[in-house]
Amino acid sequence: MARKTGSHGDITGPKVHAAALRLIARHGFAAVSMRQIAHEVGVQAGALYRYTPDKQTLLFDLMRGHMDALLAARAAAAGGVAVFDTPLIRLDEFVRFHIRFHLERPDAVFVSYMELRNLTPENFAALEALRRDYEDQLEVILLSGAAAGEFGLTDTKITTLAIIAMLTGLTTWYREDGRLPLTQIERIYTGLVRGAVGVS
Amino acid sequence: MARKTGSHGDITGPKVHAAALRLIARHGFAAVSMRQIAHEVGVQAGALYRYTPDKQTLLFDLMRGHMDALLAARAAAAGGVAVFDTPLIRLDEFVRFHIRFHLERPDAVFVSYMELRNLTPENFAALEALRRDYEDQLEVILLSGAAAGEFGLTDTKITTLAIIAMLTGLTTWYREDGRLPLTQIERIYTGLVRGAVGVS
Repeated sequence: MARKTGSHGDITGPKVHAAALRLIARHGFAAVSMRQIAHEVGVQAGALYRYTPDKQTLLFDLMRGHMDALLAARAAAAGGVAVFDTPLIRLDEFVRFHIRFHLERPDAVFVSYMELRNLTPENFAALEALRRDYEDQLEVILLSGAAAGEFGLTDTKITTLAIIAMLTGLTTWYREDGRLPLTQIERIYTGLVRGAVGVS
Repeated sequence: MARKTGSHGDITGPKVHAAALRLIARHGFAAVSMRQIAHEVGVQAGALYRYTPDKQTLLFDLMRGHMDALLAARAAAAGGVAVFDTPLIRLDEFVRFHIRFHLERPDAVFVSYMELRNLTPENFAALEALRRDYEDQLEVILLSGAAAGEFGLTDTKITTLAIIAMLTGLTTWYREDGRLPLTQIERIYTGLVRGAVGVS
């Protein structure tokens, strides 16, 4: 806490979010104080309170920021896939997109799962709505594949949740210097997902 | 903290583990003190220290206890499936086993994933070895199915991790009073896993 309050002009959203994310991912929301976050940013605690009213708001902003980024990136990626492409092409693209997006943000993925329990009911509900928006995008692909007779599905909702859990699980073990390059891992997961939806 | 130290005779492993698991699942390891755990058990902090030397040991005991229970339950369940059963029968049984075991212990599943970061390197390595023992049991089934020409697999290791992540993901959304009964959800997941390993 060497710097003076005067340096609070340095505070920017991305800086605060990056510092809070790092600390919360490492120690957990309940164990991290606003003072620690301010210290990590390099300002006095008072300066941080001028940026965000409390720790709950900061956590929610972090988690909503992650979902907003996911939905924006998804919209951009989906725009590159023509609506007249086959459900299978769109499914493969979704798998690659989901893997790439989540592998680039292991801390945000971890915090987004782990700290749901620390959100107020209102904030939790808002997050859940965003999460469902994202899940719906995969489910729409599954429904169109089923309608076209290309996919064999028993339950599109559960299949959606199962595929997303399978893909996100990669973040718990993937290492850049691991046994296989990412492109090959993506091909393996694309194959697993195709199999799960009844395409061989 | 109304009780006197004399009540420490009440401390038993299961009581301490249940209290610690509840608190750590709710608040996170770093935010929970030995004093809080003692209070939850209903004894003085000093009594708790006579049971476990420190919080790290307690966390490791919790997480190792979860893996030991998993491996013991798996050994018992696998004993009910004859070695001459087909890989597909053994795979279906594994899926049902994994789902049932994990749905019954949401706190332990959550803590086992979330608190890996708070283990010492030695404890982490010991946990990882137990986790691999468990994963190996699914991989052996996949390998035998591939050897018999019944499963179509590109990479048994990654398929193992992907299946386990897919199944464990169920713990994040399953509710007993949900849309479908558990037996039907199990059938859906069995179908998804069969598809993923190339069995239609």
